[in-house]
Amino acid sequence: MRAKLKVFTNIGELLTLEGARSKQARHPQQSDLGVIKSAALVCRDGKVEWVGHECDLKTKASDAEFISLEGRTVIPAFVEPHTHLIFAGDRSHEFEWRIQGQTYQQIAAKGGGIRHTVNETRKASVAELTRLAEERAEVFVRQGVTTLEVKSGYGLDVETELRCLQVARALKGPRVVTTYLGAHSRSPEFPDLDSYLHMLCNEMLPRVAREKLADRVDIYVEEGFFSVEQGRTYFRRAQELGLGITAHVDQLSDTDSTAMTLEFAPQSVDHVVFASDASIRKLAASGATAVLLPSSDFYLRMQYPKARAMIEAGVRVALSTDFNPGTSPTQDLSLVGVLARLEMRMTLPEVLVAYTLGAAFALAREAHVGSLSVDKYCDFSVLSGSWSELFYSVGRHPIQAVYKSGEPLLRS
Amino acid sequence: MRAKLKVFTNIGELLTLEGARSKQARHPQQSDLGVIKSAALVCRDGKVEWVGHECDLKTKASDAEFISLEGRTVIPAFVEPHTHLIFAGDRSHEFEWRIQGQTYQQIAAKGGGIRHTVNETRKASVAELTRLAEERAEVFVRQGVTTLEVKSGYGLDVETELRCLQVARALKGPRVVTTYLGAHSRSPEFPDLDSYLHMLCNEMLPRVAREKLADRVDIYVEEGFFSVEQGRTYFRRAQELGLGITAHVDQLSDTDSTAMTLEFAPQSVDHVVFASDASIRKLAASGATAVLLPSSDFYLRMQYPKARAMIEAGVRVALSTDFNPGTSPTQDLSLVGVLARLEMRMTLPEVLVAYTLGAAFALAREAHVGSLSVDKYCDFSVLSGSWSELFYSVGRHPIQAVYKSGEPLLRS
Repeated sequence: MRAKLKVFTNIGELLTLEGARSKQARHPQQSDLGVIKSAALVCRDGKVEWVGHECDLKTKASDAEFISLEGRTVIPAFVEPHTHLIFAGDRSHEFEWRIQGQTYQQIAAKGGGIRHTVNETRKASVAELTRLAEERAEVFVRQGVTTLEVKSGYGLDVETELRCLQVARALKGPRVVTTYLGAHSRSPEFPDLDSYLHMLCNEMLPRVAREKLADRVDIYVEEGFFSVEQGRTYFRRAQELGLGITAHVDQLSDTDSTAMTLEFAPQSVDHVVFASDASIRKLAASGATAVLLPSSDFYLRMQYPKARAMIEAGVRVALSTDFNPGTSPTQDLSLVGVLARLEMRMTLPEVLVAYTLGAAFALAREAHVGSLSVDKYCDFSVLSGSWSELFYSVGRHPIQAVYKSGEPLLRS
Repeated sequence: MRAKLKVFTNIGELLTLEGARSKQARHPQQSDLGVIKSAALVCRDGKVEWVGHECDLKTKASDAEFISLEGRTVIPAFVEPHTHLIFAGDRSHEFEWRIQGQTYQQIAAKGGGIRHTVNETRKASVAELTRLAEERAEVFVRQGVTTLEVKSGYGLDVETELRCLQVARALKGPRVVTTYLGAHSRSPEFPDLDSYLHMLCNEMLPRVAREKLADRVDIYVEEGFFSVEQGRTYFRRAQELGLGITAHVDQLSDTDSTAMTLEFAPQSVDHVVFASDASIRKLAASGATAVLLPSSDFYLRMQYPKARAMIEAGVRVALSTDFNPGTSPTQDLSLVGVLARLEMRMTLPEVLVAYTLGAAFALAREAHVGSLSVDKYCDFSVLSGSWSELFYSVGRHPIQAVYKSGEPLLRS
């Protein structure tokens, strides 16, 4: 069969992010965005074959399908690297209880909190979980996302966790990276975290690895949840099984969980709000990406992670919504980006790279997505305005069309 | 001609807000929402003729068009009571300059700030201003808004201010309340605020009143802008001319401008972030509504108004986006509502009433919109979920359809 060749022409402005790529997405500047005016983009079999000034284009019309993008701006598609997408049930009423002064403990005592989501998720069928996940995935795609991380973690038993990972694996639309988060919280069937962890290490992790349901594993290390030592036990087992590693670390307090996780060459360490200066130095010296989740800090009315200190130290950062029904019930990338700029003093080039190449690194997908570079997937968004209008107006998503492997995933 | 009669049936849950209406929208509770399960709504010539339990419905099918709302939830349409909708130009680059540490003064010195918007707006044609305003109005309508306040204020000369008011008056889609905000800032053609104010009082206000272009007038009273005494001069003249009164007051500092404005029986006093306890007491005793604009405080990283103190004191509050290209470049009602709940500790019933009946009072339209009451316009939204899902997830607008005078303004 002949290779499928598509040429996107008449691109007013195209951002490759090639400069950020050569710097491994650490400390990106405006000049790293790789802005090309009057650009063209050649896509062969879903991958970028060539990108450059349209006047240098060699491909002939007889070989390829030509598509004019009408002078618009093109950016690499966004990568959303931390979501709890698969769950059933609604916890909006708990938000009201919290405003009215009820504590997490009081809400948990009447069956609320994560326990509520676990109960509803266990009851939900594959069809129902799929319907919900597809609706939510589409909300991300409409905002220009073509690569989406999806965690399990609301089953907390063997059967439901596997079901959620299967739903994630089968999800239509964006590229999906699946993460097994059995170690999200204590399973109600176990008397303590140690006994649950024992089951995870001896039963679940081998099964997840064998059935290839998860690309990587995640754990929530925090006071009152899994300890640093339990995290080590979990990661040792995951590493033996060849699973990628990520973790929720130092979110609500400095437990030194960032440093512990870095012992295991993780893909990313997520939250890092209370990471110490020493942890930030270790992080900068590592290959790991810090995934910052400011909408979670916004909803929790917490402090924000020290993004400026991290970036200046040479840490690669990514951004994400942390979409979940409890602490960050939003899927809005514009909120995340505006918070990153307003509250974390990140520049627009830093935000753009964090939501593309930085996030690709966070998922160990930097060879495939996150920039418009030769041999990567031809995943991009066509904007309805200039890229300077991104991450400025909460709720505004100037995305006119989204392409995955050169094919329209969404067209308005 | 026979009256046009429409009956909306099969409404799973309908919120009339009738209880809030009887309390004049002051201190609304959950019980004031007027929740009716299995409801029907009768609309005659665009107005509510009857609302109640469907089993009590008397209208016969032969008299009317029957429309099933498929068991969904119906709420009164939102009223958006404070927007600077009419402007040209883009100031997203200034947002980046501010993140990078440039002051408002530095940005103004290179032609940025309000001056930039004024220059671009003066250059824009009626057609261009209309296109921009219609796009923006549609963003509000999609979120369930059918009544929209629109201010002038980016012309600062006779010709442009009138043009902007004409564009606002002619706007298609939602009901529009127009507000003349010539006193937004000093006009560049005048050496000082006093001489500009003299022109406003002697030329512009009479003309605005005569041509019936504005329903009311507004002024920005703040240190470095118009003084309390200048506000008094402006309002005296507006009152003589029979124009309604509103004002930007006590936004960045306590200038006692809330108290001064209350001398003139205003429809609303807006921002009131730094209003003193004494001003709050005066406000509670007045007929005026406090319009709170938390997305502006969010973007400015300021404190939020003391909503709880106001509500407890008996002040009627409304909420609004303050949509403008500088300090609040968002049109997102969900952000406003989430900020009201998270940062101002407003309950969900308070937020709902603030964005409907409270906002209707703020525009002196409480006899016509803001609740689903007999003889008011039949303006409502059909939700895709429960009303408890509103103002919880930033960026999520569970609006399935929007009706104005019983006719679909938007249907998804």
